[in-house]
Amino acid sequence: MMNQCPTPRHEDERVLLGHGAGGRLTAELLDTLLLPALGPPPGPLEDAATLPPVGLPVLSTDSFVVSPLFFPGGDIGSLAVHGTVNDLAMRGAAPAALAVSLIIEEGLPLAELRSVVESLGKAAADAEVPVVTGDTKVVGRGAADRLFITTTGIGRRIPALHPSAARARPHDAILLSGPIGLHGTAVLSTREGLGFEADITSDSRPLHRLVAALTRFADDLHTLRDPTRGGLAAALNEIAEASGTGAEVDEAALPVPGPVTAACDLLGLDPLHVANEGCLVAYVPEAQAGDVLDSMRGVPEGESAVRIGRTTAAHPGRVELRTRVGSHRVIDMPLGEQLPRIC
Amino acid sequence: MMNQCPTPRHEDERVLLGHGAGGRLTAELLDTLLLPALGPPPGPLEDAATLPPVGLPVLSTDSFVVSPLFFPGGDIGSLAVHGTVNDLAMRGAAPAALAVSLIIEEGLPLAELRSVVESLGKAAADAEVPVVTGDTKVVGRGAADRLFITTTGIGRRIPALHPSAARARPHDAILLSGPIGLHGTAVLSTREGLGFEADITSDSRPLHRLVAALTRFADDLHTLRDPTRGGLAAALNEIAEASGTGAEVDEAALPVPGPVTAACDLLGLDPLHVANEGCLVAYVPEAQAGDVLDSMRGVPEGESAVRIGRTTAAHPGRVELRTRVGSHRVIDMPLGEQLPRIC
Repeated sequence: MMNQCPTPRHEDERVLLGHGAGGRLTAELLDTLLLPALGPPPGPLEDAATLPPVGLPVLSTDSFVVSPLFFPGGDIGSLAVHGTVNDLAMRGAAPAALAVSLIIEEGLPLAELRSVVESLGKAAADAEVPVVTGDTKVVGRGAADRLFITTTGIGRRIPALHPSAARARPHDAILLSGPIGLHGTAVLSTREGLGFEADITSDSRPLHRLVAALTRFADDLHTLRDPTRGGLAAALNEIAEASGTGAEVDEAALPVPGPVTAACDLLGLDPLHVANEGCLVAYVPEAQAGDVLDSMRGVPEGESAVRIGRTTAAHPGRVELRTRVGSHRVIDMPLGEQLPRIC
Repeated sequence: MMNQCPTPRHEDERVLLGHGAGGRLTAELLDTLLLPALGPPPGPLEDAATLPPVGLPVLSTDSFVVSPLFFPGGDIGSLAVHGTVNDLAMRGAAPAALAVSLIIEEGLPLAELRSVVESLGKAAADAEVPVVTGDTKVVGRGAADRLFITTTGIGRRIPALHPSAARARPHDAILLSGPIGLHGTAVLSTREGLGFEADITSDSRPLHRLVAALTRFADDLHTLRDPTRGGLAAALNEIAEASGTGAEVDEAALPVPGPVTAACDLLGLDPLHVANEGCLVAYVPEAQAGDVLDSMRGVPEGESAVRIGRTTAAHPGRVELRTRVGSHRVIDMPLGEQLPRIC
């Protein structure tokens, strides 16, 4: 029952099937690449990590399958941190701990894996959240496309805050913390080689500090949502449906950078459908809108925050765009098939 | 900025790219397939789920990439619950909530997805743990092999228990809750069409009730580990390394079912290296071994629990097998490349 194997070579340049099989190669990958990038383990490696008490816990998980792995403004590693930190933030929670699980295609260059994991570790450190546990699986060539990352976060809810899509109310102001369309067009342009990569950088970044800066608005922070997959159109429609309120968005107020407009024109995309990874919409009572905007603009992530519209009792569940020429049209929930693997 | 699309057909038989893009198709997949299988959502769908306070939280994550998706005794859905529930249990925790993230290959039959997700939902219900949040991504044909599932669990640690690989001590008895080798050989036999499928059924099952049944042993429950990837050999070596104790295992005491021995002979595998998904090893003081075995045998998951060996101060960090003929040989950490995609 003995297995005499040669010592794995440290200079192996690509991920092997055995790196995911729970034996010595897995241990080596952990010791030489994953743990140095993600921070030293607090103790012996176990099947699960014990945490200090979390108060009001919030849980969120996301798988990241973005292609390519690297794009202007980020990579799958930083995105995997920001996406989950932001999902927690949208429920008014600060990130307390992350769990990270990798699915790697056999043959992925170890240098690429190291680059991604180092970026993930840096993004977690920047967001001040520890990676406390993880898993690594390797599948054969052709059974996955390079690398997928699933990040799960536990957050600690800020007690004063309880934003929810269901809490949007008629006569709320709809605020947007930054320009739209950057992440999706940055990824698509890189993937398709469209040449916009020099002009468009993903907005991928953590938003929990922006949310924390709004703590004093407490109950008035009705709804927060980051318009990722499906873009602003999906976020506004989900909120309209969950809350039973209508929404009106002013086309003239929408911050769409010029290169995003150009890329969307070329690709036949609506900027409202394009994923973002570093902005949020906030629904607050009209009377508080100015103060909330001021607070948003006081932190770097919200410095270009604007008001883009309002809710209404007039057409429950429906989102309308007030165009530059004064007409109204419906902003539909996107079907979604145009933009695979954007996050 | 409007997108007029045809209403997606409910009778679509395969997963489409758009099912993972965050738009109407994603919402439809959630409403018609995922949420009915996993239980009704407690409220509107949000980016993250709020949880009741968890006391002493434990966090664990695992990606499941088993191939094939269905095997005797389970499927990727039930396995994804049991694997994570068991990782929590090995730290003395009862499962409190699960987060489930799917990565689906475009073209997967919806019937297969439904079958897996229903099995996952049933396994979670059987383990009495709610699935509180999730994510779904779809990648193009050839970019993943059918379906991968990442399950993350939050557990509530039983206050009396704090088992850890580092807490094994010389003169502990090593107990094993059930036969070894069933899961790995069941999956391999199915994948390779070896014909053992009629005789071998995976041991995949939740172990948190077995652990709860040992609560009264408190501090004496030094170490728990479920020997999954890398099998019993990896588990014993990890514990030996983390605790600095040696271990001796009696070959004659190892419960290896006949069909497992036959399958391993055919495949050139060591049963000690084959993954299990429904048994655990427990390290307890010699004086407690009989009582702990009695308690294990009192629950169905532990009814065939046996004592397989002991720890020793004689060879710190090394695991030895005492063979039937009385000789000793080292049980090495498996290298691991023989058994990809077993869980």
